Amino acid sequence: MSGAQGDGAAARALFVVLDGVDGCGKSTQAALLVERLRARGGRGVVHVREPGSTPLGERIRALLLGREHELDSGVELLLFAAARRQMLRELAAPALARGEHVVCERFHGSTFAYQSVAGELPEADVLGVLERWAGEPRPTHTILIEVPPERAAQRRAGPSDRIEDKGLEFQRRVAAGFQRYARLAAGVHVVDGVGATAQVAERIWSVLEER
Amino acid sequence: MSGAQGDGAAARALFVVLDGVDGCGKSTQAALLVERLRARGGRGVVHVREPGSTPLGERIRALLLGREHELDSGVELLLFAAARRQMLRELAAPALARGEHVVCERFHGSTFAYQSVAGELPEADVLGVLERWAGEPRPTHTILIEVPPERAAQRRAGPSDRIEDKGLEFQRRVAAGFQRYARLAAGVHVVDGVGATAQVAERIWSVLEER
Repeated sequence: MSGAQGDGAAARALFVVLDGVDGCGKSTQAALLVERLRARGGRGVVHVREPGSTPLGERIRALLLGREHELDSGVELLLFAAARRQMLRELAAPALARGEHVVCERFHGSTFAYQSVAGELPEADVLGVLERWAGEPRPTHTILIEVPPERAAQRRAGPSDRIEDKGLEFQRRVAAGFQRYARLAAGVHVVDGVGATAQVAERIWSVLEER
Repeated sequence: MSGAQGDGAAARALFVVLDGVDGCGKSTQAALLVERLRARGGRGVVHVREPGSTPLGERIRALLLGREHELDSGVELLLFAAARRQMLRELAAPALARGEHVVCERFHGSTFAYQSVAGELPEADVLGVLERWAGEPRPTHTILIEVPPERAAQRRAGPSDRIEDKGLEFQRRVAAGFQRYARLAAGVHVVDGVGATAQVAERIWSVLEER
């Protein structure tokens, strides 16, 4: 990226989505990216995760990931879309309007991969709901961090949740779903997530530097 | 209604929706209808309210009606649809499959009136979401209890919630929304809700007796 201040990242406010299977390194890379954008100065950086980040989103996250409720893919889709709409309205839109960058962990790619390809909802229905109810503001960059599911499973830290419980076969379908999303959706950048953390961070940074 | 057992109400499992503005008498009439159907015997009766009745639905109800979160009509619609889908799958469908009646307070008419007509979402969007994600099982009877909003406001009992807070002008738009829903949607029966409780109950019962 290049800009009047000799600082590409500051040339315009970015809305960067990092997406991919559980354990692909999204959270680590998001934290590094936020740090790097902040170090460049000039603009604030808002770091969000989906579902969550707003008070409503965190309550929905607890409903979705807890084991208390038995949910089908349709209910999941509606709840993810509600949380995302709230995040976009409450956090992303105001941040971008203030000229701040937004870095978001998980977005439409996850919903497509989990609820449609792995969850068996028709693709057009899932994309239709996301486009209509969580379509704006639109990310400037969507980066899919690609890691083989077997490898991601080894990396995954902490206790598992209701969706992670579904096993390796389900995770393979999720991975295929992300690949399909990258082909279907406009402007998804696929980044190899295998390698040292700093190396992957450079790959992500270089996507943001491309124009 | 007429049936082989000489008991009309038992001839088939009913899925009766009672809808209308706050204070129109839905809860009172639903309780009376449940009692009457139970007294006829032969079939169990499941009494639900929307949003709510399932553990997930009650959690969503608290999110929707509490004053903790600032929600736009789109987020409201998605949450109502999620709660309703869960209720249909978890309670209504199994009850009807067991041959039991279902009596439900509030349904699509409320969502249409509040989120579309009063909440300014395009009608086709609201009806599209409800049809696609909360379309089955379909009520056998949808009864709109009509009461002038001024009169309903006097009747309303208990502390108000986030949506009731919106005032009489909003309630007038909601009432107009219910009327519009009755014209648009197939098979909505409008019942005059003004009069003695027993009288209104008779009017509702006579709708169920019609074929």
